[in-house]
Amino acid sequence: MEVYLDNSATTRPRKEIIENIAEYSYKYFGNPSSLHRMGLTMEKKINEMRRNISGIINCNEKELYFTSGGTEANNIAIHGIVEKFRNRKAHIICSKIEHASILNIFKYYEKFENIEVDYINVDSNGIIDLEELESSIKEETVLISIMMVNNEIGSIQPIKDISKIIRSKNKNIVFHSDCVQAYGKIDIDIRELDLDMISISSHKIHSIKGSGAVYINNGINIRPLFQGGGQERDIRPGTENTAGIYGLSLASTIMDERKSSERKKIKDMKEYLIAEIEKNIPDIKVNSPLRQENINNILNISIKGIKAEILLHSLEDKGIYISTGSACSSKNKDKSHVLKAIGLIDEEIEGSIRISLSYENSKEEIDFFVKELKESVSFIREIISL
Amino acid sequence: MEVYLDNSATTRPRKEIIENIAEYSYKYFGNPSSLHRMGLTMEKKINEMRRNISGIINCNEKELYFTSGGTEANNIAIHGIVEKFRNRKAHIICSKIEHASILNIFKYYEKFENIEVDYINVDSNGIIDLEELESSIKEETVLISIMMVNNEIGSIQPIKDISKIIRSKNKNIVFHSDCVQAYGKIDIDIRELDLDMISISSHKIHSIKGSGAVYINNGINIRPLFQGGGQERDIRPGTENTAGIYGLSLASTIMDERKSSERKKIKDMKEYLIAEIEKNIPDIKVNSPLRQENINNILNISIKGIKAEILLHSLEDKGIYISTGSACSSKNKDKSHVLKAIGLIDEEIEGSIRISLSYENSKEEIDFFVKELKESVSFIREIISL
Repeated sequence: MEVYLDNSATTRPRKEIIENIAEYSYKYFGNPSSLHRMGLTMEKKINEMRRNISGIINCNEKELYFTSGGTEANNIAIHGIVEKFRNRKAHIICSKIEHASILNIFKYYEKFENIEVDYINVDSNGIIDLEELESSIKEETVLISIMMVNNEIGSIQPIKDISKIIRSKNKNIVFHSDCVQAYGKIDIDIRELDLDMISISSHKIHSIKGSGAVYINNGINIRPLFQGGGQERDIRPGTENTAGIYGLSLASTIMDERKSSERKKIKDMKEYLIAEIEKNIPDIKVNSPLRQENINNILNISIKGIKAEILLHSLEDKGIYISTGSACSSKNKDKSHVLKAIGLIDEEIEGSIRISLSYENSKEEIDFFVKELKESVSFIREIISL
Repeated sequence: MEVYLDNSATTRPRKEIIENIAEYSYKYFGNPSSLHRMGLTMEKKINEMRRNISGIINCNEKELYFTSGGTEANNIAIHGIVEKFRNRKAHIICSKIEHASILNIFKYYEKFENIEVDYINVDSNGIIDLEELESSIKEETVLISIMMVNNEIGSIQPIKDISKIIRSKNKNIVFHSDCVQAYGKIDIDIRELDLDMISISSHKIHSIKGSGAVYINNGINIRPLFQGGGQERDIRPGTENTAGIYGLSLASTIMDERKSSERKKIKDMKEYLIAEIEKNIPDIKVNSPLRQENINNILNISIKGIKAEILLHSLEDKGIYISTGSACSSKNKDKSHVLKAIGLIDEEIEGSIRISLSYENSKEEIDFFVKELKESVSFIREIISL
């Protein structure tokens, strides 16, 4: 039995999406920039897909730009604002638990004399300190980036409360949210949430890797990250990744159509998973917020007396795939900045694993996983205690 | 009959590549950054593909980085060098006939007070003026970018002569070549040609769009274009486009294996095409260099007394697809900077078309094209002369 429980790192593309992409890529291969009919057909198709995704997040189709993924979307958004302040004073804010692709942009700007950078604390549930955020905002603040759903523990930020605070303090601030882990898992209405920019990714919702999008409110001017032949209205030049865009659009449609059943299935599985783990494995601590808003598909726990990496390899021998932290920083041997930020001690961080579910998982897989987890944990605890 | 003669804009993906990508994407979907076996498998596969492509251009596998396409590869290379000189004087050089994704980067830097930019002239064959290049190089020159094959007329630059000149004048200069139109059409040996950086693209060699690579000599440090989770050794962060990388590698292998037969087929077709056009259509001018080095798949001609855009639409009604200029700037209504640079007058530029071939085209298609071209040209000439 192979049990894939690392769906926050990436998801298996739906078979129907892969098959459709293959057919589409062979049939529609024109360059969208070509003047002839084949080019116009492609341009029209891309704009239909843009309209489709825009409808799902409730933005105008002219506010959505296709990118090569979530990381690039984050970079287009953040650099796009901050680069306008190359020679002026500016202040930018994000949370302490952002994804590496946001944190590393902020770290990059720390080196600039004219840019001031603030990182807002989170509580033990991974929810940002709204008072600290409010008091951090100043006249020079030009950008605030707060992720919607955390990739390691699954906490959901109170985005609407955050935008209210931001708007009441300073009308000039651009509010961005990294929605890579949120898109497809919860509804995102950018007007309702009053967001200026968001980033989404394709491979987290069962399409192929290398594709994503950034929503940028029409009222906002950004400086493009790089130059080219004018595609995506100069915001993201380069021949369009037509297969990736098609996959993102199709995956969005399927996700939207099946959301009530698939999200419920995942929610029920997570509840069952927590109950089974608590029943079968002593001395564990749930790091994901359960009493606060949290995402259905992510569960982070600390298991006393084990090293997560040993457990990960023990489980993979049994065909079970989980994560010790976020995949994007798993090669980085530093301790999880997220688990540190929610107040875990070193031992708890070292013994923490992330289980992330998708519609593909089943109750039988959860049973198999808990059984094997129990066995591996006992074995590792025994060895370590020797 | 549908005849696609716009293969320099983009190519139809080979069916075998599409099918293999589809199977691969479903089977191998792990995140290469994941610590478990599925992640390691992906990482290993990506590095095998890196080795494969590196072998074809004769670089070390550690010198090749996957990108989201040719435009991004160009931007990573050029910005990667010039951004290091944010607060220092620097001088950069390219030719007057570069692709928009290079020219627009150079135009961007024109606005910087500390950066000086030079554009080198070309002769009527589209070959750069080596003396002008030599005399333009100065102490502050940090980067020279000269495309290997021009996308509009198909001229091949004497890259080895250029690198000799550069090395003899100033050892500190980084020499980059946009090889998007060259890769797959002619052999590229970066050691033999003494190149520091090159850009290649996937969709020009019959794979899918949204994928490419940049070779950066090991001795060269570049500043990354953006930040993320450390992928591609920080040169190009973001979850890897595994399907695109697989397609690029597979397309490279097939291209390399079949190059002698496919390149010969294309060469013979081009010669036949030129002969047939010259035989059947009066008052034409061949803009592609025929006596100089030129690429087998591109033919640019000016047809007296017509407007290329009208001809393009007349031909598309008959199922024939050609281009009036480079696809990437076709939406731009400015006259072709390349045809201007080789000395064409306005009327010749307005009447110019680009026919670009691939292994998929046949002699029968050429016959059909020339017959329809003859008819359309007569018709348009008649109307315009009324």
